[in-house]
Amino acid sequence: MSQSKNTRIVLASRPKGAVTAENFRIEQATIPSPGVGEVLLKILFLSLDPYMRGRMDDAKSYAAPVEVGHVMEGGTIAEVIASNNPDYAVGDIVLAHSGWQSHAISDGKGLTKLDPKIAPVSTALGVLGMPGLTAYTGLLTVGRPQPGETVVVAAASGPVGSAVGQIARIKGARAVGIAGGAEKCAFIRDELGFDAAVDHRAPDFPEQLQRACPDGVDVYFENVGGAVWDAVFPLLNTFARVPVCGLISQYDGSGPSDSDRLPRLMRSILVKSLTIRGFIYREFADQRPAFLLAMSEWLRTGQVKYREDIVEGLANAPEAFMGLLKGRNFGKLVVRVA
Amino acid sequence: MSQSKNTRIVLASRPKGAVTAENFRIEQATIPSPGVGEVLLKILFLSLDPYMRGRMDDAKSYAAPVEVGHVMEGGTIAEVIASNNPDYAVGDIVLAHSGWQSHAISDGKGLTKLDPKIAPVSTALGVLGMPGLTAYTGLLTVGRPQPGETVVVAAASGPVGSAVGQIARIKGARAVGIAGGAEKCAFIRDELGFDAAVDHRAPDFPEQLQRACPDGVDVYFENVGGAVWDAVFPLLNTFARVPVCGLISQYDGSGPSDSDRLPRLMRSILVKSLTIRGFIYREFADQRPAFLLAMSEWLRTGQVKYREDIVEGLANAPEAFMGLLKGRNFGKLVVRVA
Repeated sequence: MSQSKNTRIVLASRPKGAVTAENFRIEQATIPSPGVGEVLLKILFLSLDPYMRGRMDDAKSYAAPVEVGHVMEGGTIAEVIASNNPDYAVGDIVLAHSGWQSHAISDGKGLTKLDPKIAPVSTALGVLGMPGLTAYTGLLTVGRPQPGETVVVAAASGPVGSAVGQIARIKGARAVGIAGGAEKCAFIRDELGFDAAVDHRAPDFPEQLQRACPDGVDVYFENVGGAVWDAVFPLLNTFARVPVCGLISQYDGSGPSDSDRLPRLMRSILVKSLTIRGFIYREFADQRPAFLLAMSEWLRTGQVKYREDIVEGLANAPEAFMGLLKGRNFGKLVVRVA
Repeated sequence: MSQSKNTRIVLASRPKGAVTAENFRIEQATIPSPGVGEVLLKILFLSLDPYMRGRMDDAKSYAAPVEVGHVMEGGTIAEVIASNNPDYAVGDIVLAHSGWQSHAISDGKGLTKLDPKIAPVSTALGVLGMPGLTAYTGLLTVGRPQPGETVVVAAASGPVGSAVGQIARIKGARAVGIAGGAEKCAFIRDELGFDAAVDHRAPDFPEQLQRACPDGVDVYFENVGGAVWDAVFPLLNTFARVPVCGLISQYDGSGPSDSDRLPRLMRSILVKSLTIRGFIYREFADQRPAFLLAMSEWLRTGQVKYREDIVEGLANAPEAFMGLLKGRNFGKLVVRVA
């Protein structure tokens, strides 16, 4: 693909329910020139993450929505290819948030230089980036697993879930992962070392989960909601903690049950002294240095492993993103842009 | 009433929905004699509290249900009228948990001696007892109000709610109380010093509550659920904390809405980083000495006021309890047994 143009993917329309290809539009534009103090970035990798679904709606959330006609938001790894900023030299590799496009201008604010010698740079979008920090802070600060306790996490082959389970084991807890399909379940059990893996597509999934958690559930790291929540909820022990970082199953508008589940939830919160706590990794930004230190060491010793699912070409980002919302990726979903 | 017999009220049957008079039966029995190491108690006051509704069902909860045919459970203030226990003398006044009856035997375990010179002994069932400790620990440990924040509490003329609002103000927060009817609202605003009072029976209650909370709600001390929850929920601010100590509106089986409110709740927990945390005062029993010290001082200085609603005669306990579940009491509901 010629890179004499800036290729970008914009939000063409807001989804009504499930995201469709028509909600995106690919555009070509002139590559901008950096002004005073600015750098020109060539995007190498684009991260695709569930939170992006929220940005496509105009509902009130913790971040402003993407405007229709604007470039889709997203974390990126980029190379500086022109610089009018003394802090950045041509050839520097940086973590940026430049969205679904091939090139971008930055004034340097919000960029983080990466050292390709320490780890493959794409890991700054995954195990050493936002998903890793989400897992680390949500599990340790909100979930606070104790040795011998049972930690359950869904989307367990994904970047957040896989880190949650492995960190839980490092802290002496029992890790039970939920994933879709035999292949992912084998991966989290045999490759990542989870104590148990349960396939949420199995017809007897709730019973399988119960058997995998003979002592109940002390920490449920919630990132999916829906049917998985319904299966985990009755297993929660007294004083269980539920960090909530995502609800991917309800992002596309599904989720409500025929009956009102709120009174039952509230009663359980009361009689089991449950803690349910939403969070976003940004709240714990001050833990980033400790996280990077710990996670780098766990990667070095092999105590934490990660898997990436790399899609080739920016044009394939919309389809890959729709697959992500359906659980079709297998590992951290990243688009190789250049 | 002759006290040559032990008068007791037993659970005659489990309620189907709302509690009715038929669920109780009054019985006369011989006053038991204390054995070795035991004392005989004459009950002076019986506490009536919402949690007792839960004990009438056989649903799993944090405490075992009362068995059908057994004496209803409850906290009491009692006088030792015979003693074979060297730790207790005839005439001692104690806090006990001897249930809905006029006399009881105790081996001394779980009794707490009270000094009638410090405060009226009935306060050990209210502002200086379980309801006060529930308010103190739930608000300060779970709710953690900061100066200038808005704290909302329902059943605000009751023993828990009235303490929550007054402690919130002592800590520099703004206290908004919800109560049923003009008289209770005037009491919490004019007598207890709440910053605002809102009548949940008003047809435009949600709008009135919103106007009373122009900066949103940072702490919602949940003890009622139902329509009050629905009105408070949209007002919760980012990082709001919701200690849950009761759900009186749904104890009698009402509560579900026509639609499933769970997905909306979970989404708000996520995007507002909410904390919802159930608790029972027993979890914080180690804070009792600090609570007694602080609350005694606040009572002495007049920073905390309390109101009791005293019903005469054990035979009237069932009707008073049914009134409690409908919000008909005004202040801490206590039965004068002798």
